[in-house]
Order: sequence, then C-alpha cells, then structure tokens
Amino acid sequence: MIRQSQSQITVTSGGRSMIDITRQVSEHLAQTEIQTGMLHLFVRHTSCSLLIQENADPAVQADLERFLSRLVPDGDPIFQHTDEGPDDMPAHVRATLTATSISIPVGQGKPALGIWQGIYLYEHRRRPSTRRIIVHIIGC
Amino acid sequence: MIRQSQSQITVTSGGRSMIDITRQVSEHLAQTEIQTGMLHLFVRHTSCSLLIQENADPAVQADLERFLSRLVPDGDPIFQHTDEGPDDMPAHVRATLTATSISIPVGQGKPALGIWQGIYLYEHRRRPSTRRIIVHIIGC
Amino acid sequence: MIRQSQSQITVTSGGRSMIDITRQVSEHLAQTEIQTGMLHLFVRHTSCSLLIQENADPAVQADLERFLSRLVPDGDPIFQHTDEGPDDMPAHVRATLTATSISIPVGQGKPALGIWQGIYLYEHRRRPSTRRIIVHIIGC
Repeated sequence: MIRQSQSQITVTSGGRSMIDITRQVSEHLAQTEIQTGMLHLFVRHTSCSLLIQENADPAVQADLERFLSRLVPDGDPIFQHTDEGPDDMPAHVRATLTATSISIPVGQGKPALGIWQGIYLYEHRRRPSTRRIIVHIIGC
Repeated sequence: MIRQSQSQITVTSGGRSMIDITRQVSEHLAQTEIQTGMLHLFVRHTSCSLLIQENADPAVQADLERFLSRLVPDGDPIFQHTDEGPDDMPAHVRATLTATSISIPVGQGKPALGIWQGIYLYEHRRRPSTRRIIVHIIGC
Repeated sequence: MIRQSQSQITVTSGGRSMIDITRQVSEHLAQTEIQTGMLHLFVRHTSCSLLIQENADPAVQADLERFLSRLVPDGDPIFQHTDEGPDDMPAHVRATLTATSISIPVGQGKPALGIWQGIYLYEHRRRPSTRRIIVHIIGC
C-alpha cells in the first residue's frame, strides 16, 4: 500500500556555503520505514538552492563557488534590487540557475544516490540564515 | 488512501515576461481537495520555463531578465538555429538553464510555498505565445 | 489503486554529447501498464545531466553545446579540481546549471511530452562513460 510522509529540515548557515544535508535526509527517510519510493525536497526560500553534487573532493565546492561568483558578481551594477545588500539579487539569480526542488528515488530504504553524490543546501546569501526544507516521501 | 489528479493550465503571454501562475495552481489544487501530498508542474515547451522566485519586489523580475539577456544575448552569432528569429535559440538556452518541471509539496490543502515564493511561467520568446502546463497532484 | 515501479536505464556515451533516451523511457513506462501518473528520472552521477529539449533540429544541440563550452570553458584556470583532466570540473558546473532529476507526467500510458520535446542524457565528460538513470513511475 502506497503511503506518504511529510516533515521539515531546518538548516542554519554561517553565510554563503554548501551544507551537506545527506545524513539528515537519510534519517528522515529511515523514520518512515519506506523501502521503495520517491523522496522530494523543496526549499521554502528564493536565495538558496538544493543541489546534488560531488561529495569527495572539497575543491569541487570551492571551484563551483568561484565559478558562480564570477558568473553572477555581487554588486553588479545591472541589479536594482539591492535592499538587503550587494549579494541580495545575485542570490536570487543563483537560485534561478540551480534548483528549488529535487527528487531522489528511494531503494532499500535509502536515497538511491550514486556513490559520489551528496545532497546540499547551497546558501547564496553572505549573512547567516536559517532555512527550511520540506521532505516529502511517498512509497511503501 | 493516496489518489491523484491531472489537469492542464493554459497561459497566454504577450511576449518575454514572467507570468505569476500561483493563484491558478492553487485553484487546481483546491478542486482536488487533497490536503497533503505533492504537486508537480510540467511545461510542454522548450522555450519557456517554470520558476519559483520572489513575489514581492517587481525589480527582482526586471533584474533577472537583465541578467539573462546579458548571459544569453539575442542574436548571438554563435547560434545557427535561428529559423524563428534572434530570440529562438536563446529561448532554448534559457529553458535549459532554468526548469521544465518543478515539484511543490502540498500541506493543509495549499502549495507549501515560503512566504516570498511565487510560481511563474517564464516566457523566453519575444512573440506572444500560448503555453500548456500539466498539473499533477498526488496525495490524500 | 496507485502503484509504483522502479527500474534502471544504462546509457553508454562516446564522450560529450546529448543522447536521446525518449524511446527507452517510454518502453520502461509501457511495461508498467500505468496509464496516468508521474515518471521521475534521476541520474546517479555528478558530471552529466538530464535535459528535456527540442528534438527536431540537430542545430539546437550544437548551439547549446557551443554556448555551454563558452560559458564553462574546459581548462579554465579558476578550477583546482582537475584530477581527471580539463573537462572534469566544467562537467560538474554544467551538471549544476542543468538537472540531476526531472519529473514528467504520464497520460494515456505515455510520457506527456510536448510535440517538440525529447528526453536527453547530456554527457559532459569528453571521455566515453557508462551512466545509470533510475526510472521511477507512480500512478495507476
């Protein structure tokens, strides 16, 4: 019988960074005892993202940040939405270019990630923030 | 008992712009009377996108458009697929960099959006278009 | 009664390219005999993507590749994660800017794609690779 579960993960960041939430997501899944299904993550904010990326070499995160900082520079004079500072609008653009929702299959009670895949919250604002992610799991 | 519903939203644009479809999506959800579940949106076109972004300050939309216009310039000479004009291939690239499908959790009979989140169809073509979005809702 | 199915598609590429997997996905769906529902695809790798794009004019793929090659140049000196060559980190960035998971509604036993939409695996590495995609279908 297919059933569903909905819960929330809260993540506090110290500022712009990628925060590994793989363990927290796996724990929410384990509590449901769902063995096969789909796990959907949704972040309720517009200046951070969800991302699945390489979890082995920390240089990947540094390189990705360097690339995005160059592509969407803080303080770019084309931006008028600057109420909350020079990183305000770049954070919205970065969120647009990445993902607000991701969906991961569940197999044998675990997220069916590849061996090098981790699940990250990518905080794009420079100030510390608290972010809420909804975890929805459906399956049996 | 988990059940599902599938319907379609049709959106007509006057050309390149972000069109707020939050109310229409919420109405489709309300008709199902599903209280908890997942709501999936899928746009059946390759030159427009689905986007969740800030719904308060209109400058966000203007800034996002300015950014994308600079990143993917209409009439860029590297493009050969120009049958429908200088905005044809840029529209496909913009669609590639954003999203064709988004998934939003449902709680208490509403899309569980953050307070500043709106759901948009981002039309990337400059000419007026009619776009079809499939709304699939699963839950109970 | 809502039910689900999970299977895997394996795709071998000869290097950086877009590989049309629409037929394979449709065949997995046909085997389930699910008529209405959702089809979720998830790629278990961090240097290739899933993409829905135009399936008519091959110039779209060539143009998209030219655009991404310029946006995320192989051998860019800002990248330090170069263990596997000059296309290693660019492949991760391209995957970040596109999608690891996509969700497609199912109607009348088929993926409810628009007439011009095809489903692609976008391989971003230059060397040949074998990639695994999980196909999860839920519906009835």
